Amino acid sequence: MAELRKDPLTYRWVIVSTERTKSPAEFISSSCSSEAESGKNDPLAEGNEKMTPPEIYALRPKAGLANTGGWKVRVIPNTYPVLRIEGQNRAEGVGIYDMMDAVGAHEIIVETPLTGHPLETLAVEEIAEVFKTYKLRMIDLEKDLRFRYLLVFKNVGRMAGASLSHAHSQLIATPVVPSIVQNKLDHARSYYTEKERSIFEDILQQELRDNQRVVYQNSGFIAFCPYASRFPFEVSIFPRRQMSDFYSAEKNEFIQIADCYKVVVQKLNKALNHPHYNCLLYTAPTRSSTTTARLDGLERYFRWHVEIIPRVTMITGFEVGSGFYINPVPPEAAAQFMQDVQV
Amino acid sequence: MAELRKDPLTYRWVIVSTERTKSPAEFISSSCSSEAESGKNDPLAEGNEKMTPPEIYALRPKAGLANTGGWKVRVIPNTYPVLRIEGQNRAEGVGIYDMMDAVGAHEIIVETPLTGHPLETLAVEEIAEVFKTYKLRMIDLEKDLRFRYLLVFKNVGRMAGASLSHAHSQLIATPVVPSIVQNKLDHARSYYTEKERSIFEDILQQELRDNQRVVYQNSGFIAFCPYASRFPFEVSIFPRRQMSDFYSAEKNEFIQIADCYKVVVQKLNKALNHPHYNCLLYTAPTRSSTTTARLDGLERYFRWHVEIIPRVTMITGFEVGSGFYINPVPPEAAAQFMQDVQV
Repeated sequence: MAELRKDPLTYRWVIVSTERTKSPAEFISSSCSSEAESGKNDPLAEGNEKMTPPEIYALRPKAGLANTGGWKVRVIPNTYPVLRIEGQNRAEGVGIYDMMDAVGAHEIIVETPLTGHPLETLAVEEIAEVFKTYKLRMIDLEKDLRFRYLLVFKNVGRMAGASLSHAHSQLIATPVVPSIVQNKLDHARSYYTEKERSIFEDILQQELRDNQRVVYQNSGFIAFCPYASRFPFEVSIFPRRQMSDFYSAEKNEFIQIADCYKVVVQKLNKALNHPHYNCLLYTAPTRSSTTTARLDGLERYFRWHVEIIPRVTMITGFEVGSGFYINPVPPEAAAQFMQDVQV
Repeated sequence: MAELRKDPLTYRWVIVSTERTKSPAEFISSSCSSEAESGKNDPLAEGNEKMTPPEIYALRPKAGLANTGGWKVRVIPNTYPVLRIEGQNRAEGVGIYDMMDAVGAHEIIVETPLTGHPLETLAVEEIAEVFKTYKLRMIDLEKDLRFRYLLVFKNVGRMAGASLSHAHSQLIATPVVPSIVQNKLDHARSYYTEKERSIFEDILQQELRDNQRVVYQNSGFIAFCPYASRFPFEVSIFPRRQMSDFYSAEKNEFIQIADCYKVVVQKLNKALNHPHYNCLLYTAPTRSSTTTARLDGLERYFRWHVEIIPRVTMITGFEVGSGFYINPVPPEAAAQFMQDVQV
């Protein structure tokens, strides 16, 4: 089992395992397993459905039985969840410290039945089905009033924290709003309060006007290297339309975000020779945790967005200790290079 | 050259290089150079003083000429500084964005003249001289009114961001207080305002009382795995005596912190087979940036401290995207294991 613990100096919540095993080696091995499986030993491949926990959802165009083949996208609980679905949000003081039960959900979205096919190599319509699956899972999990936030993310490659190479993303439902999300919400709200404008719209207009950091755009989305990029070749994708919740996206928008994702990752692959990367989908916190904020204008001041972060530099002591990032690549140069790369 | 840029959504400052070179490969290579030099090609070794920029300071027990051998500890400017000493703190708006000139200092503290001798393998008295050197450099840099914070840190091993294996630490002087430090200051101040007690003293007393997470102690310092450790086997070292500024430490305290550092790192080396790690020295911001805070009690509510962070797990998309950390090792188990390891 695990606990959420709050650091009294930084107010940072940490998910701490409380299972005691025998040696440090045992602790570490579970989180550093190797990647690169193929065919028979790929637990996420079609035909190996029995190697995973029973599915939560699967897209089966021709129907068919659960936990058998014939699916396009499949959602399963993580075999080693960092948060568990059982229990209440029990919170208590431990001496001067604060803890909370680590209640949540941890799901794996298997993006394709095929081994060795990264998401960006699929057809745009297939990628769109993966984004639609996020929407379905979010709508379902949002009903659980214990959950405050639903974070969808992808780890691609060992340097980005992946332990399996089969194309997949993860969804973690947390009982508190993560600090980075809360930061974005707070600053977007104060900007809106002061200017009666959305900071997301202002950033988007600034990027279109400057036209120095835009990487790609289509009728629904703009992909750009943020002005204060933390990492070389970091890309943000904003929808042109104001939507605070990812699940408000509509049919053609799934095709457009899929197209945008595919082009950006293909450009990164060419520019940086298939970098390991993380992808993050930021949406508004669940309705149960934002009842007041929604009355205050959250649906006008916050906009869902995607971040793609290549992991080509190490996170050093300076970054870990200060929260400052050092980016050796100007985002203007990264964007120019990615614009020039043909995919 | 570089700029400080502020992200409008997270208010995070980023140090962004603005030098344009030709290809992405060029950008990346500078930050990912390999480690493991030995003898002749070790720019930080005694006898190779000409391979580095001229020294800022050196401890020479028998005097001798600058930039020659005969030193025990040597301080040089970083050949590739992330912040530069020249210029004013010019700040300006760039469209809707904020930027500041990347003025600062970036120094390398070479901890020993010998190649292949990590800091923890030196005698306690030698390690104490390294800590005393931090003090001297801080007192000198604090005079520069453009600097708000002085962060001393160590990257040991490639996974921790080291590009050279010769024992060294770094000091970066920044023109803004880093967000993690500001967080600690804010929370320590509000705790003090509410309770008229130091949160550092309360944490220290709680750890001594619980006696579940203490790793090592001597008459000056307590080393413990923090209650909400982000990383497996993370260790914090607090002085027993209230001091907000590291440079207030006195003679015997340098010996005691050196002893504590040596024991903790030797225990980590045994427990985790010489893990790569970061070490951070948190002191109060410079006097020029805390004139009011010092009147408000900073010298009673903030205490300098050290963090040692083994880098044995990957930082995944979840951590990068949420600010939440997942720690697979309970700090109680890590502390127990380190207590049991004999060094």
